[in-house]
Amino acid sequence: MAAQPLDFYFDFASPYGYFAAMAIDELAARHGRAVVWHPILLGAVFKNTGVTANVLRPLQGDYLRHDVLRSARYYQLPLTWPAVMPINAVAPSRAYYWAATEDADRARALAKALYRAHWQEGRDISGIATVADVAAGIGLDAEALMAGVQEPAVKDALRAATDAAMARGVFGSPFVFVDGEGFWGADRLVQVERWLAQGAW
Amino acid sequence: MAAQPLDFYFDFASPYGYFAAMAIDELAARHGRAVVWHPILLGAVFKNTGVTANVLRPLQGDYLRHDVLRSARYYQLPLTWPAVMPINAVAPSRAYYWAATEDADRARALAKALYRAHWQEGRDISGIATVADVAAGIGLDAEALMAGVQEPAVKDALRAATDAAMARGVFGSPFVFVDGEGFWGADRLVQVERWLAQGAW
Repeated sequence: MAAQPLDFYFDFASPYGYFAAMAIDELAARHGRAVVWHPILLGAVFKNTGVTANVLRPLQGDYLRHDVLRSARYYQLPLTWPAVMPINAVAPSRAYYWAATEDADRARALAKALYRAHWQEGRDISGIATVADVAAGIGLDAEALMAGVQEPAVKDALRAATDAAMARGVFGSPFVFVDGEGFWGADRLVQVERWLAQGAW
Repeated sequence: MAAQPLDFYFDFASPYGYFAAMAIDELAARHGRAVVWHPILLGAVFKNTGVTANVLRPLQGDYLRHDVLRSARYYQLPLTWPAVMPINAVAPSRAYYWAATEDADRARALAKALYRAHWQEGRDISGIATVADVAAGIGLDAEALMAGVQEPAVKDALRAATDAAMARGVFGSPFVFVDGEGFWGADRLVQVERWLAQGAW
């Protein structure tokens, strides 16, 4: 029986989610694993749990803005600070679940393109027109996407993913599960890799 | 001119501060640097900034309890979960500043002994009697300590350290400054070491 895939939860508004998104597939593949991507809306989790987003907390917000830029250079990933941040990620997240209804690979390619547009080029990807433009850039049908994100099943898929994440204890982005073991943060990918290599320690 | 020492801010109640405390002196020494230790009261920072301690947040609290145990095994450090957590760290912090009035090395030795008592043996170090007992265990004068922590200058030193930390943007533990560059979290010691080795990147 093949090993279980990793579950990768993230919010498009999260820069640390971007760092993880650029590394997680290759990391898992080194250990013969696949990854299931799950964009979610952390804002809904925060609302449900009464928590303030870390970037909006006093002192921590200033630190995070500095740490994100420094960490991007540390990981050698391009980063342009978006003019609008944090964005509402409903549109890009729904676009992902629309793309996933047909093909997980194209959904993943779209997610990576959206992350690059937002965090590498600094584009505001909260509007569906921009999302469709990014999708067209990787060969997807922009008109089909614009219609698709209105389908109840697509809206439900995003809600269900966010609810499922919260039920599993997800409170931040990125959040990775390996065989039921949860790891929060791009800086925990080092531990994720150790877990994949040797199992529980 | 000798290179500036690192500033290491921590709260005795913080398990991630314990992880950093067990590594920071050796890490700095590998790059010819000393470390100035600064125990602070994060509770005062939280009160001033209106923030809830991470371990008290929904979902995150459960995760942190799990992550601390897993990270202790990852760092190969002993850990016994204290029956009382988070403790009020006024007494051990004042004891540190009392010890530091005479000798920074004995203050650092006391801080390490207190961290071990709390996080390796699970002892409640919030009471001055326990703090004095731990101090006696490393050869300090328990009676002098009990009297010393009542001195206004010692109380002021703790208040001043906490205020200075907040003024520098400290909002969590551990927090390390290298030549003015701040790093939050035991997981950022990897970046601290890179900064020491090669300077800004």
